[in-house]
Amino acid sequence: MAEKKDSIRIGVIGTGRIGYVHAKNLVQRVQGVEVVCVADPYVDRATEWLDELGITERYTDPAKVLNHDKVDAVYICSSTDTHADFLVDAAKAGKHIFCEKPIDLDVEKVKNALEVAKNAGVTLQIGFNRRFDHNFAAVKQAILDNKVGDLHMIKVTSRDPEPPPAEYVKVSGGIFLDMMIHDLDMVRFLSGSEVKAVSAAGAVLVDPEIGKAGDIDTAVVTLWLENGAIAVIDISRKAVYGYDQRVEVFGSAGMARTENDLPATIEITGVEGSRKEKPLWFFLERYNESFLIESEAFVKALREGTTPPVVGIDGLEPMYLAMAAKKSLEEKRVVEISEVR
Amino acid sequence: MAEKKDSIRIGVIGTGRIGYVHAKNLVQRVQGVEVVCVADPYVDRATEWLDELGITERYTDPAKVLNHDKVDAVYICSSTDTHADFLVDAAKAGKHIFCEKPIDLDVEKVKNALEVAKNAGVTLQIGFNRRFDHNFAAVKQAILDNKVGDLHMIKVTSRDPEPPPAEYVKVSGGIFLDMMIHDLDMVRFLSGSEVKAVSAAGAVLVDPEIGKAGDIDTAVVTLWLENGAIAVIDISRKAVYGYDQRVEVFGSAGMARTENDLPATIEITGVEGSRKEKPLWFFLERYNESFLIESEAFVKALREGTTPPVVGIDGLEPMYLAMAAKKSLEEKRVVEISEVR
Amino acid sequence: MAEKKDSIRIGVIGTGRIGYVHAKNLVQRVQGVEVVCVADPYVDRATEWLDELGITERYTDPAKVLNHDKVDAVYICSSTDTHADFLVDAAKAGKHIFCEKPIDLDVEKVKNALEVAKNAGVTLQIGFNRRFDHNFAAVKQAILDNKVGDLHMIKVTSRDPEPPPAEYVKVSGGIFLDMMIHDLDMVRFLSGSEVKAVSAAGAVLVDPEIGKAGDIDTAVVTLWLENGAIAVIDISRKAVYGYDQRVEVFGSAGMARTENDLPATIEITGVEGSRKEKPLWFFLERYNESFLIESEAFVKALREGTTPPVVGIDGLEPMYLAMAAKKSLEEKRVVEISEVR
Amino acid sequence: MAEKKDSIRIGVIGTGRIGYVHAKNLVQRVQGVEVVCVADPYVDRATEWLDELGITERYTDPAKVLNHDKVDAVYICSSTDTHADFLVDAAKAGKHIFCEKPIDLDVEKVKNALEVAKNAGVTLQIGFNRRFDHNFAAVKQAILDNKVGDLHMIKVTSRDPEPPPAEYVKVSGGIFLDMMIHDLDMVRFLSGSEVKAVSAAGAVLVDPEIGKAGDIDTAVVTLWLENGAIAVIDISRKAVYGYDQRVEVFGSAGMARTENDLPATIEITGVEGSRKEKPLWFFLERYNESFLIESEAFVKALREGTTPPVVGIDGLEPMYLAMAAKKSLEEKRVVEISEVR
Repeated sequence: MAEKKDSIRIGVIGTGRIGYVHAKNLVQRVQGVEVVCVADPYVDRATEWLDELGITERYTDPAKVLNHDKVDAVYICSSTDTHADFLVDAAKAGKHIFCEKPIDLDVEKVKNALEVAKNAGVTLQIGFNRRFDHNFAAVKQAILDNKVGDLHMIKVTSRDPEPPPAEYVKVSGGIFLDMMIHDLDMVRFLSGSEVKAVSAAGAVLVDPEIGKAGDIDTAVVTLWLENGAIAVIDISRKAVYGYDQRVEVFGSAGMARTENDLPATIEITGVEGSRKEKPLWFFLERYNESFLIESEAFVKALREGTTPPVVGIDGLEPMYLAMAAKKSLEEKRVVEISEVR
Repeated sequence: MAEKKDSIRIGVIGTGRIGYVHAKNLVQRVQGVEVVCVADPYVDRATEWLDELGITERYTDPAKVLNHDKVDAVYICSSTDTHADFLVDAAKAGKHIFCEKPIDLDVEKVKNALEVAKNAGVTLQIGFNRRFDHNFAAVKQAILDNKVGDLHMIKVTSRDPEPPPAEYVKVSGGIFLDMMIHDLDMVRFLSGSEVKAVSAAGAVLVDPEIGKAGDIDTAVVTLWLENGAIAVIDISRKAVYGYDQRVEVFGSAGMARTENDLPATIEITGVEGSRKEKPLWFFLERYNESFLIESEAFVKALREGTTPPVVGIDGLEPMYLAMAAKKSLEEKRVVEISEVR
Repeated sequence: MAEKKDSIRIGVIGTGRIGYVHAKNLVQRVQGVEVVCVADPYVDRATEWLDELGITERYTDPAKVLNHDKVDAVYICSSTDTHADFLVDAAKAGKHIFCEKPIDLDVEKVKNALEVAKNAGVTLQIGFNRRFDHNFAAVKQAILDNKVGDLHMIKVTSRDPEPPPAEYVKVSGGIFLDMMIHDLDMVRFLSGSEVKAVSAAGAVLVDPEIGKAGDIDTAVVTLWLENGAIAVIDISRKAVYGYDQRVEVFGSAGMARTENDLPATIEITGVEGSRKEKPLWFFLERYNESFLIESEAFVKALREGTTPPVVGIDGLEPMYLAMAAKKSLEEKRVVEISEVR
Repeated sequence: MAEKKDSIRIGVIGTGRIGYVHAKNLVQRVQGVEVVCVADPYVDRATEWLDELGITERYTDPAKVLNHDKVDAVYICSSTDTHADFLVDAAKAGKHIFCEKPIDLDVEKVKNALEVAKNAGVTLQIGFNRRFDHNFAAVKQAILDNKVGDLHMIKVTSRDPEPPPAEYVKVSGGIFLDMMIHDLDMVRFLSGSEVKAVSAAGAVLVDPEIGKAGDIDTAVVTLWLENGAIAVIDISRKAVYGYDQRVEVFGSAGMARTENDLPATIEITGVEGSRKEKPLWFFLERYNESFLIESEAFVKALREGTTPPVVGIDGLEPMYLAMAAKKSLEEKRVVEISEVR
């Protein structure tokens, strides 16, 4: 593919599932960018889609991308344990960075990486894609348009279609850091407020193996926000009917809430009543468009030199909330965020 | 009105708003009963509807009803502070009792009253009418029909259209006893389980006067149930759009949830989108039919000599939950119900 | 029951199902009326509910009611073939009249009866109860509030839960007069316009016995309105899922439409999708409140001396539309209403 | 772009809006195809997207594509009046053909073109994309799965967000051929049945200029199907709230129906009631995915040598229905399809 004039040139690190999603959007749908190169220890496994997308420069060594002289920005889509190191390396090489969340499961590593990126003066966006989802963005807009008035309550429901294997659970960082992190971000996003304190409830109801792995699979977390509102998140590792992703915000002027996206609007009415379809099952299908829109926002920020919509601190703050939730669950009390900072 | 053969003969104590609701249902819609007499210090104010219903025997002294030799059962619809005493008197007089909730704001008075009723061997039903609401009863039925599977989570949302005056708030017993008591009962009803522990969050967001009166107007309570499930109740003293009454239950086989009742099913679509009507505003309109069905259930229990669907203990247990919620709010920790018993 | 001062005194002719509905509303729920007496050749069969409602004056001879000196108005709830005669007798006796539809299956008898009533100067309301239904009234209000703008299209869907027996079909006057008459009235009601011409399609798809009885069980009728709009009605004698009653109006400013009333708002989501309840099955349940409201409107018109909301001509005009529809079906062409007048 | 092994090689004729839609899908999303070349007299205007898609072989002369020795199949996306000629030329050149509808406004030209294609033995698919829409395909599937039982009624509603200019209307072939053709196809698709007779109603309610151009802008057409069912289509050239595309099918086992696709599932509830978003406005947005799926179906048919899901006759039959509808409107009578064949 010929180099496009004025294009922002991107290198993608990690050619697994999420690397593919981003590369495909960048090549086919985002205007004004080109994907120069990719790197992955197992880049050979991605031959088919790299061919399909016409990406010919391929490395097994991420350093080749991180230090590539024709790369303006990198997408860090590798395994979680490598994010922080690549973020640091990229920042030091003066590359702008789109980094998948979480930055790391260790808060000190995250703080250090953010510090390096800040000092390097590069643009950094964290991959909280749900902020760009049509439904949640519409709720945010309703709040901005004052349709809800002063915020009194935020409710987030998040249920996965299937639990992860217990082996994964063991290294996941626990349900709050691994799964609820998105919902904690959603509370911060919708409210535009930080959180003061947290209280958590949890149980093992889905899979006893998750309990044996030292985690829970069902949780409810209440959050006291600095703006005075109360938020409550409920999550489950398994909903038999599919991926359940809803929010409700309530305030002095009214309420805004979302329903799940369905494959079709059909309703069939028979002797058993009226039936609608199940929610979309797979997160890549459900959030497909949000990945595109977040990349467009990143590219726009790069092009205009503005602050991207999800910054480094947005990768750090929800970690404190998750840590406070874990502490609350263990100590059966309200935990101030200041206790875990 | 001529005495009907085999009718259950009822005396109504209290001819205010809720007394009228019950009397009207008993006279016009419940089969096999007759209202023999009523009593209220201000019975004169009820002349119009007593005439309308053809109830001619009227007293200012409740004792006249409680000891009436033609009365089989009494409806205690007077002010809250008199419920426990009338309950005791009725029980001692051998009358069956339908008692509006709360029995009293003081748990010791409630326990004593229930003890007396028990020893007297009379039938006692407590007025948790929402259990008989078409929507909530349908959720209960879905649970019984195993449509939800093992219960993992119960969510109850309850928002009033308008806050009470601060003067009322001062003597109300607080939001948990005064307002959330219905929702605490709903959790017990839907789950069929007692509660082990409670955690509460609260804020004054609706009306500062409520705060000055020593109460909150917005609350979220999380409950650990003995059957392992988690419940979360969110309430507000004011929703500008009307009376918001919804539940959601989630479990291993799926989810069941309700929407608010609307005045009509009309949807108007124009340049601003599609608009549906607001929920019904007034609780007597919203729960109109539930009052009838609860009376029918009471009468059925009397006629068949069976246990009524809402018994004395159902008037006591939610009080402990409310007390634990209040304690949790003050002490910022999870409170075991055993701590407040 | 003591005579109420200033009450409008009503006599009910016909103590079958619809007579009971009206009598019960008049006794229990409509303000400012009393039911003085009833008449029916089989009045003995109604003893139970007449006792329940406290109606003691009972006749087998309708003339006793029609000429009763304490009766201000009569409700004609007898069998269809007697409506016109009783209407004439009542008018001649100077009684105001609420008459169930149809007035008669013979248009000449209807015209004559209306003429008599007009000359007698009595108030006459025809029982098109659906106009008073909460959903359809809301659509009418939306039109009056200009939410729809200039009317372009009206769509009415009407499906019964079960077909009538073929024996009934034979004497019913045919599907247009017997069943669609309500929907033809709905078009006139919503549009506020008369109809110029009609085109009909029909088939026997539900029950071959209906075909053998010379009728159809499925029909679509298109109507050209004098105000320029087009209306289309589709009906079926049988919907397995219950009583299906919906309208949609469309115009220059938008669309308003209704859904069926459901027994409860519950939605159960499982591996098969999300299920809501079937529509209400029985017309007396579905339209219960509309019967009350139409009686309240009749009484209000009597009390205030105003024109009632459904007048004599409203009983006649839809008959012409039904007759034109039948002619159109036979002649496979558009039929002007003027052809059948 | 390198030639892919085993790819089906496609030439696209017409690089306007719909040509772009198909080319983009073929290049980016359909597996196993490549776009070899394009032709359009104004191909220069498409430079930007042709560059974007990496399509380098570009002609002004369609013959270059039609006779290209590396082209297996052509997409005819040019202006309507050229479809039939290109179809004939492509068939004679032995190319498989995907042809946008309508094939032509003149039925004789269409018949001739189909004859040529048939004799040439090439595969021909007509661009009735709505058959591949997620909602309508779900209704078709519900019918195939016997959820509806024997079909009794099909209802199609189709309203455009804005009327075309009167200048276009003059050469459009009229509302039945130009706009309702999709809905007529939908009836054939859903029913799997041909149509016996048609009756039409119409009016000029949206724009008097359309009337002056000799056309109508609002229409209702009733269709008698050979399988006994009745269908009714209502269309309008303008719905202020957007693109309104719904169907309902009703039968012996129940009903299936669709709602419009909305941009988001958000519902905002305030003092004015609950508001949902308007339907998607633009047909390319609304039917975006259907264009992809129809191309995938075409490619699958080519690869497997099977009959494509929309064949030549599907391009011809709805024309007869449209012609019969026009005749019915003029003659105010039911028109048999045999009259216009």
